[in-house]
Order: sequence, then C-alpha cells, then structure tokens
Amino acid sequence: MRHDPARLSFEIEATDGSARRGRLLTPHGPVETPAFIPLATKGSVRGMASREVADLGFRMVLGNTYHLLVAPGPERIDAAGGLHEFMSWDRAIITDSGGFQVFSLAHGGVSEEIKGTGRKPQGLAATLGIDEEGVRFRSYRDGSELLLSPETSMSVQAALASDIALVFDECTPFHADRDYTARSTERTHRWLDRCLEWHGENGPASQAVFGIVQGGTYDDLRAESCQAVASAGVDGIAIGGTLGRDKEEMAEVLGFTVPRLPAEAPKHLLGIGEIDDLVRGVALGIDVFDCAVPTRLARHGMALAPLPESRFRIDIRKGYSAGRRGPLVEGCRCTACSDYDVDYLNYISRSEELTAVRLLVEHNLGYMEQLMSGARDAISAGRFAAWGDAVLAGSSPWAAAGAK
Amino acid sequence: MRHDPARLSFEIEATDGSARRGRLLTPHGPVETPAFIPLATKGSVRGMASREVADLGFRMVLGNTYHLLVAPGPERIDAAGGLHEFMSWDRAIITDSGGFQVFSLAHGGVSEEIKGTGRKPQGLAATLGIDEEGVRFRSYRDGSELLLSPETSMSVQAALASDIALVFDECTPFHADRDYTARSTERTHRWLDRCLEWHGENGPASQAVFGIVQGGTYDDLRAESCQAVASAGVDGIAIGGTLGRDKEEMAEVLGFTVPRLPAEAPKHLLGIGEIDDLVRGVALGIDVFDCAVPTRLARHGMALAPLPESRFRIDIRKGYSAGRRGPLVEGCRCTACSDYDVDYLNYISRSEELTAVRLLVEHNLGYMEQLMSGARDAISAGRFAAWGDAVLAGSSPWAAAGAK
Repeated sequence: MRHDPARLSFEIEATDGSARRGRLLTPHGPVETPAFIPLATKGSVRGMASREVADLGFRMVLGNTYHLLVAPGPERIDAAGGLHEFMSWDRAIITDSGGFQVFSLAHGGVSEEIKGTGRKPQGLAATLGIDEEGVRFRSYRDGSELLLSPETSMSVQAALASDIALVFDECTPFHADRDYTARSTERTHRWLDRCLEWHGENGPASQAVFGIVQGGTYDDLRAESCQAVASAGVDGIAIGGTLGRDKEEMAEVLGFTVPRLPAEAPKHLLGIGEIDDLVRGVALGIDVFDCAVPTRLARHGMALAPLPESRFRIDIRKGYSAGRRGPLVEGCRCTACSDYDVDYLNYISRSEELTAVRLLVEHNLGYMEQLMSGARDAISAGRFAAWGDAVLAGSSPWAAAGAK
Repeated sequence: MRHDPARLSFEIEATDGSARRGRLLTPHGPVETPAFIPLATKGSVRGMASREVADLGFRMVLGNTYHLLVAPGPERIDAAGGLHEFMSWDRAIITDSGGFQVFSLAHGGVSEEIKGTGRKPQGLAATLGIDEEGVRFRSYRDGSELLLSPETSMSVQAALASDIALVFDECTPFHADRDYTARSTERTHRWLDRCLEWHGENGPASQAVFGIVQGGTYDDLRAESCQAVASAGVDGIAIGGTLGRDKEEMAEVLGFTVPRLPAEAPKHLLGIGEIDDLVRGVALGIDVFDCAVPTRLARHGMALAPLPESRFRIDIRKGYSAGRRGPLVEGCRCTACSDYDVDYLNYISRSEELTAVRLLVEHNLGYMEQLMSGARDAISAGRFAAWGDAVLAGSSPWAAAGAK
C-alpha cells in the first residue's frame, strides 16, 4: 500500500464492528463511504444528465475502459480534456480496466456466472486470442483489431484521466477449476506489476491505482492474492472475480478476504449491488460498491423497494400494480414516488414509455444513495447492526434509522 | 361561437398585423399564446416527468383519445381522478378526438400524406368499418373491438377530464378527391353537431370543446367548413386535414381559412410544428400548435437549431459533429447546450445512449418554448415581422429579439 494525498487519501471517520464510515479524498472532491457508485459505462448514466446524477447525491461514477476504447476512443476523450470534461462531470470518476469485459467475451457471460446462474462458457469466438501480453478482440463498432493489456488499459485510463484507475486483470469465471484459477491469478499478479510499472512511468500523477484481488473461491489463492495486491504499492484494493454460487458463499469468500487486507485501504467490491449484498458487504468492511443492477432493473420495469420477500424489488408491470394508489415506496424522495401513483407507473412501464425507464432509473439510483446514506449515519451513530437488520427485515433505509 | 368563462376565456392582449398575443384561461391556469403544445400522447411527454415539462415553461400538453382508450382505458383514468391527476400535471390539457388516428389506420399514413410525401392508402385492413355511426377498429393491445364515434370520443374525453376536448372528425387525406373530401367534410359537420349535443347533455361543465375545420385544399369546402364550425357554438377552432402538398400550399390554405374564422376565436393548427411553419402560422393569426416533430426528431439524433438551410435541424450523429467543441446552439438554456459540447452529444447519440434522447427531447422542446416566447414578446413590441424574418433567415429566437 502506498499513500499519496496528491492523488488519493482515505480517512476513516467512524467504525462500528467491521463496518466503517470514511471519506475518499480525490482530486475531484470527496466521496463519502460506504458509497454506491453508479455506472456511466459509456460516459453517461442511463437516461440521466450528469448534473442530475450529482443532484441525487452521488460523488463518483464508474466509466468503462473497454467500451470507451471501442468508442469514442481515448484520443477523442483526451482531446476533450479527459472524461470529466467530456461528460461534464466534475466529481470523482473511477474507471475499470476492461478486463472483465474482454474475458466475458472469451468465457461467455462471466457476469451471469458470478451471480451463480452457472452458464457454460461460449468459447473464444469473440476474442482473437489471450496470452501473456493481453487480450486481442475485434471492435463491435468497426471490426478493427484492438488489444487490451496491462499497458494499453493503463494508457487508456491515463487518457480518460479518471481519479482512480483499476489494474488490468482476468476475472476468473465460476466454472474455472482450481488449476485454471491458480494460473489465472498468478498472471493477474504479473499484470498488476506491469500496470504499476507503466503507471509509475507514464500515468498521471494525480491518478490513483487500485489493485484487484482474485483467487476465485479458493481460500489459499485468495489469501495469496490479498498478500500480492496489498504489498504491490497500490492506493486501494478492489475485490473481483467469482464470489461463489450464491450469497452464502459470497459472504464466506468476503469474510475470508476482507480481514486479510490492510485496514487502512479503501476497499471496492466490484460489480455487486443488490440491497442485501450492500448491507452485508458494509458489515464486512467494504467501502465502495458498483453495479449495473439499479439501472438494468429500471429498463425492465423493476423498482427497488423494502421487500426482502421479493429480492427488494417490485415488478411494476405486474397486474397488482394497476389501479394501486399511493407511491411506489412511502417516504422515498424521488420524482416517481413524490409525484405519481403506482397505477400510473404500471401503465407507462407496460406501455414502454421512455418516461417510465427514466423515472425508475432515478428511483433506483436514488434509493441506493438513500440506502448508503442511511448506512453512513448508522455507522456514525454506532447502530449499524440494528439498522442493517431492519433493512434486511423490510424497513426502508430511512425508516430503519429509528431501529434499536 | 360561444363564450363561457367557467370553461374557457381567450383574451387577446396585443396584435401585430394578423399575429396576436393572447391568453387562454383554463380551469388549470393560463396558457400564453401563441403557444406550442408538447404531445403527451399516452399520458407522458417522451422521457420527461410532468414537473420537468412544467419547468421548461409549458402550460398545456396534448393527450390522445385513441391511445388512451386502447390503454389504460378511460375507466382507469377516471378512477384516478382524470388525466391531470393520473399523469400528475396540474396545468392545462387538450385532448384530440382520436379521429386522426383511426382514419390513419384506414387511409394508411395520413400524417405522411399531410406532409406531402404522397404515400398511397393501404386500405381498411386495420379498421373493421367506417360508417355514419363512427369507426370500428381492433385494439392493438388486446385485439378487442372498439368504436370511436362522436359520442364515444366525447365520452372518453369527458372521462379524461381534459380542459379542452376536440370534436371527432375525419382527417381527409391528401390523395382524396374533391367528391370524397366534400362528403367527408359534410359528415364531419354532422359529427360536430353530435359531439356538441352529447357534450351539452353529458360533458363536464368545465370542459371546453373545439370544433375542427376540414375541407382539404378546396377553397369552397374550407369556406363552408369555417362557416359550419364557427356557427356551431364551439369554444375555439382547430384547423385540420390536409393542408396541401408543400409549405406554399399550406400557406395558401391557411391564408384562405384563418380570415374566415371569427377573430375572437382561439385557433389551433393541428399537427404542424416545424420552426418555419410556426413563424408563418403565427403571422397568419394561429394561436396554438401541436406536433410530434420535436420529440420524434430527438429519437433520431436530430436537434432543432437556427439553420434554415437544413430545415432548422442538425443531425448530431453526422461526422461533422464529432470533435466539435462548444454548445449545440449558442445561448440555448437547455441542459444539453449548457453542459455539453456537441462532440459528446454526437458520441452518446451514435452510441444510442438513452441520455442522448433525453437531452435532445429537452433541447427540442425547450427550443420550441423559447421560440414561442420570442414570438409573444415580438408581438407585444410590435416587431413580429422583423423577428420572424430574422428567425427564418437563421437567427436564434433570442438573437432575433434584437432584429429591426
């Protein structure tokens, strides 16, 4: 671990069990933690202007190296003055390395596998080759051949000028056996060194770099990976790869991994973001989360809600929402909940009106921010366990503030 | 013409040539005229929350009887307390009668024909029959048989509880000959009487009714229709049907029609809304316009702009927008123009990000409101001709305010 306030400081303000409240100080302002980070995969948060994302209270978004490499390309974003200028977002940005995406092409739906749906790999059809150098693939935009490697990923992220870059890694899929996972994790560690070497010589001085812990579900590999990443001189640590077949296994892997990382390191759990995952992740000491779930659900008419019996979501297109008076979630401050009956949301979502997606994105993201704000307050008040239990039992994040 | 302040007053505040500035006083507040009315066809303006439409300055939206009859149905909107409550819009609403839509099914793309693209009719495949009673058709939602007639259209509009209902008419297509147009226009007049009779006995006392002038491009039929509608006891007059094969012919038809209508009547030109059409329509004495153009263009990456040489629009997906610094339209107050370079808008629109459509809808609608606001101010200042000439020559509506 290294610490250079010119690029990143992490201050822990309060702890409550393993949960901690803190603040990431980036060149583009502070990020209160625990934090949920909305995806701006291709440089925009689905359906939202950047100023609207800020209005919801978010202080960091996540951009995607793979997608932004394919289009519009790092040269064009660099010419605009970096991703902040390009997308008119003056708060913090973290960029992922593209590793997840190029290995998804090869392994076939890693994201599904991480979530335990057990899909089989679809081969290397979409990639042109994986070797020690990196991953070659064809642009889905114009068919050109592109290379993502430790050096090119860091180079793209340097052009994007994000506040935090993630190292280029292989996200090992759930179906990978121990041998594959061991070799993959070792290569990820060699790539980590190459990323840091490139960044040290060429990267922006104000850009922090987070390492990524891999190792699959194998305790010894995770332990080695924790050791390798923590000793590599990174500014923070992300936890990636498969976390098991279900939420219990994920809790085991995290329960094993997090305590093996330096307490002072900011910890980012990659790609995980259901409501119960966040509550349990914060309890284990995770500081930052990103996930496509809130925006993806919105596209399919699903709204986050304090309903543990239905995975904390309502399918507002279902018949029981038609004719229902009152807001989606009582007390939620978003436009959908402030202005409309569920009845209307059901109708416009079934009619596939664009307004429905827009309102649900705002609701779902706003709900996540209200959830994390509740978590932060609960930690400061030393009542995180009670707050978390209440949320898991079906209280809204704000109603849970009164939990004893 | 009738005048009942309980449902509608129209005050003309200033005139400048044939152009007039006025105010429609509805039970849901005033509408400054000349006004552009955004479409809320299915109860939402594309991608916008109702409060955001109000924030742009609009004071009336247009709902669609045909689409709202098919889904969610008038009973459900009535149960919600009417369309205002249902869609959380406390300003004025005008509803069209559904005539345009059901006859489009029969005639095949009337809207294309009105704009002079000369498509041939596709027969009655989508309708089940047109007769003196009305038009039978199948719901695109569930296949059920539905009837739109003068009585059912007014009944649906009564349930929607719009501030202004439009009578049920046949929008005669461009390809119709004189004989068809004459018989159609006569039937439209008989339907006008039936609409007013039903509304007088059953309609909400606070709902105004606008008649619709038809007659195609035939002067004698238009003159008869003006006479029939003006003497029928309506609260305002809409001008519908084909207006010719091009903008010159439209100007002729309007130049002939508008002076034959009572000066004191509010006049709504149905379905017309390109920038030059609005300037010329206001010059002829039109008070209210509605059109799908601003929102439809946005869906295809087109932004309104002061560019007469390209039909007052920019295709921001075209290559010349890539890399271009500066706002879409200098001085425009919308989010897209305030926050982003054209470069970014080009990229997110080419990438089909939802945010692109959202930003362009806001820009295009905001541009229309700024245009009409400019027209109102110019009329008050007695400089409408100079303002209109400047806009037609390529000034932005606000830059044109300085035109002499």
